Amino acid sequence: METTAAFYVGDHSFSVERVVSPPPGPGEVQIDIAYCGICGTDLHVYQGHMDARVGAHRVIGHEMSGTVAATGAGVTGFAPGDPVVVRPLDHCGHCPACRRGHQHICQNLKFLGLDTDGAFQQKWTVPAHTLHHLPQGLPLDHAALIEPLAVACHDVRRGRVAAGEDVLVIGGGPIGMLVAMVARNAGGEVTISEINENRIALADKLGFATCNPAENDVAKAIETKTGGKGADVIFEVSGSQPGVDLMTAAAATRARIVMVAIHATAPKVDLFQFFWREIEMFGARVYEPQDYEAAMKLLSDRVISVDEMITDVRSLEQLGDAFAELAGNPRAMKTLIKCNAEA
Amino acid sequence: METTAAFYVGDHSFSVERVVSPPPGPGEVQIDIAYCGICGTDLHVYQGHMDARVGAHRVIGHEMSGTVAATGAGVTGFAPGDPVVVRPLDHCGHCPACRRGHQHICQNLKFLGLDTDGAFQQKWTVPAHTLHHLPQGLPLDHAALIEPLAVACHDVRRGRVAAGEDVLVIGGGPIGMLVAMVARNAGGEVTISEINENRIALADKLGFATCNPAENDVAKAIETKTGGKGADVIFEVSGSQPGVDLMTAAAATRARIVMVAIHATAPKVDLFQFFWREIEMFGARVYEPQDYEAAMKLLSDRVISVDEMITDVRSLEQLGDAFAELAGNPRAMKTLIKCNAEA
Repeated sequence: METTAAFYVGDHSFSVERVVSPPPGPGEVQIDIAYCGICGTDLHVYQGHMDARVGAHRVIGHEMSGTVAATGAGVTGFAPGDPVVVRPLDHCGHCPACRRGHQHICQNLKFLGLDTDGAFQQKWTVPAHTLHHLPQGLPLDHAALIEPLAVACHDVRRGRVAAGEDVLVIGGGPIGMLVAMVARNAGGEVTISEINENRIALADKLGFATCNPAENDVAKAIETKTGGKGADVIFEVSGSQPGVDLMTAAAATRARIVMVAIHATAPKVDLFQFFWREIEMFGARVYEPQDYEAAMKLLSDRVISVDEMITDVRSLEQLGDAFAELAGNPRAMKTLIKCNAEA
Repeated sequence: METTAAFYVGDHSFSVERVVSPPPGPGEVQIDIAYCGICGTDLHVYQGHMDARVGAHRVIGHEMSGTVAATGAGVTGFAPGDPVVVRPLDHCGHCPACRRGHQHICQNLKFLGLDTDGAFQQKWTVPAHTLHHLPQGLPLDHAALIEPLAVACHDVRRGRVAAGEDVLVIGGGPIGMLVAMVARNAGGEVTISEINENRIALADKLGFATCNPAENDVAKAIETKTGGKGADVIFEVSGSQPGVDLMTAAAATRARIVMVAIHATAPKVDLFQFFWREIEMFGARVYEPQDYEAAMKLLSDRVISVDEMITDVRSLEQLGDAFAELAGNPRAMKTLIKCNAEA
């Protein structure tokens, strides 16, 4: 069956092509993609930083929603028409990490949409074990935010945010903003540190306290706000040296830092403060199944709204333009690609 | 009453003086010091690195044992002749850390023997709340190791070492060696990374697996030993950049790193690996009362022997020589100062 797919072909370029989508094999499910959001990782691919991993003819995209088109042999529990999302992790099942129950950080993990073809296409075939049923009534555009919201749920769970705790989110991009929402829902008193005026404005609109490190000493502001204590939980989402400096400077004794950002180069870390204040740090990567369930429930119960996060919706044919605009637009948060006109 | 005290007077120098020791005030206890060990921190003082904190006429020393000489008004539970050790931490009781139950890392902590006079003297007067009764029959020279052993107990407790876990101790000095002993007693399979041949020989003698990073790739050795998993718990006790590089390189998924070392300058830390493997890190400083109790029990039950750790015993008059020899002797582990001839 012929469908449309957008291939990353290197150097800021996509090629939208007609391809044949074969029926799903045993244990596989074919999905009609409704929406797929553009993730920060996709932008890294677009900018050529991940060519060695993705190659020169790869469908990327993984922040998706859709409906089951067809199921392969042996698949139970899913039927054509079911609204679903994919948790895009395919683990090996036999490495030391998998054997320890850490399948989501499997030492041979395949990330669907990077290591295999992804969701910027009309029909996507994936292993059935990666599917989650969507709750009834959840709009498919909102559902495309479940994947990044699950990241935020995982991050907040790793940080064990408790009611009344002072929380600092360093970096107010899409993930930082979702982390702030989930942390607030867990009872945290959230401050977002961010330098982009548009993101500060959105954070303000969403009711968060904000602090701009270009204008203020954020650590000092947190110290004042907390009566000299410091932040109990800190999410480092900036991936920057100033963010890493702030994470220790703003920490309370036994504060919990969650390392969300992907630091491509090793920054200098004030390990003396880790010793002196007995600071704790927890790496956090992707999500586990329970984080997907938590994210779906937050959206389904309307506890968290992602309406404000969706700043643009484009067609599959406009994918290249959408990436170019997102890369250059400081107002943008999340662009969704509508992959099927009828979605 | 006239007694002898050794004062650090700056620049690698001590002055042994006769001083008047006043009777203990309300809530205080005066102790006849038996033994006091030389700590790495004392060596930092000796080398002039902490002059701003200790000043130019300070009795240092805190790894001590002794017997109660006299008690001040209002002190209960202690009587002259009782064998004791001091947990040399005087907290303020009202800062945010104290109010959160983190008295041992109080934001206004006074460390006895640095911020006040310490135990390299015949009679030492301290707040009664810092005392612990010694178990019956515990030799006073061994008891002088309780303070560093309590550090090790705290470190291992922070790392939650469980039976069968693979443990890597980076740095086999006195604290690293004690951490290795306590971790092994908790059921850990311990490897010590160390470059000093004398310390390697002692670790071998104590039955530990060792790996010399000057000769081998320690991370690779741990990977091989653990079937590709990596170390479950890692104690960074080296305070060096290579040690910090090793702590992430040798880590299993969700490994727990305990930051024991005092890093005076901020090293580069591979935060990508924290993200990728969801590594965790826990700062660990000094001890809490339960760590003192645990250390005393380990020595009293003869579960851990510190005989091999005590490499020299000197008199108070020889304090300057003892520091000079310890600083220059790669064979030394722990030098004790016998502060009263009759101890």
